[in-house]
Amino acid sequence: MPEYKVIFHIDETNKWELLLGNVRNLLNGMDNEKVIIEVLANSEAVKYYVKNPDSDAIINTMESLNIKGVKFVACNNALMAYKINKDNIIHFVEIVPAGVVELVKKQSIGYVYIKP
Amino acid sequence: MPEYKVIFHIDETNKWELLLGNVRNLLNGMDNEKVIIEVLANSEAVKYYVKNPDSDAIINTMESLNIKGVKFVACNNALMAYKINKDNIIHFVEIVPAGVVELVKKQSIGYVYIKP
Amino acid sequence: MPEYKVIFHIDETNKWELLLGNVRNLLNGMDNEKVIIEVLANSEAVKYYVKNPDSDAIINTMESLNIKGVKFVACNNALMAYKINKDNIIHFVEIVPAGVVELVKKQSIGYVYIKP
Repeated sequence: MPEYKVIFHIDETNKWELLLGNVRNLLNGMDNEKVIIEVLANSEAVKYYVKNPDSDAIINTMESLNIKGVKFVACNNALMAYKINKDNIIHFVEIVPAGVVELVKKQSIGYVYIKP
Repeated sequence: MPEYKVIFHIDETNKWELLLGNVRNLLNGMDNEKVIIEVLANSEAVKYYVKNPDSDAIINTMESLNIKGVKFVACNNALMAYKINKDNIIHFVEIVPAGVVELVKKQSIGYVYIKP
Repeated sequence: MPEYKVIFHIDETNKWELLLGNVRNLLNGMDNEKVIIEVLANSEAVKYYVKNPDSDAIINTMESLNIKGVKFVACNNALMAYKINKDNIIHFVEIVPAGVVELVKKQSIGYVYIKP
């Protein structure tokens, strides 16, 4: 069985809905093929990892995708830039020191890159 | 002779002109080197696969690039989301069940990804 | 010691600040690991390779990153489209005939692609 690895990159808050639709379609479209999916948010996109009226529906979708195995990751440089306290982030989000380093390293081990 | 494979990703209607210029420049710049080019449209970008006053000039350019071997592909999830009847799509466009799956699978067989 | 190669793609002037922040974070985050970084600008993004009041702060940042080894490249098709005289471009920018060809060829020799 082939195995695919995908890293989705998001750096704009207004792309979350589109991106999560892409992730859902990927999961639904892969049938029996195994796919590993990571969503890497940097810049202003990390703001939707914090519960607020704007991010509410988005976070519900993230949660349902996370249950299906999708990994959500935040760039710590971005968290600091937007003064976001790590304690306020939704619990299943992992934090990496630099999102851009994550994008490079994951691609270097065979992840394909998609930027919705 | 080296062979290159490229998949262009578009998900915004207002990027079509830029993307098609990129494709044209790629064809012109590759000289004798063989290049295989696919344009994958998902989300709202599929709307320009249907003839309408806005898409008219764009479709003419697509057609001239298609004659030179460029493949144009539509995401069926997007066609359904925008209630686009397959019969109304320009004839040379191929349809895949999920654009995002196409992006993953093509990259996994050596296509490089460009998102104008 | 592993070596990473990264090509950043920019085709919108309003993405320069974000892109250069990404480049800075990548350099800072790679520690002892060697990383080769190229920034490829095409379409309207090449306008910020010319000194003007809007690009002034951006060019200062480019210069400091160039001193650290980051390569800045302009698409000649874009320079011609925007009627930019090569003599007016900041001195450390290299020019390639077609930015999109550069994106393909660099990825084909192992560069990973990031589009902020």
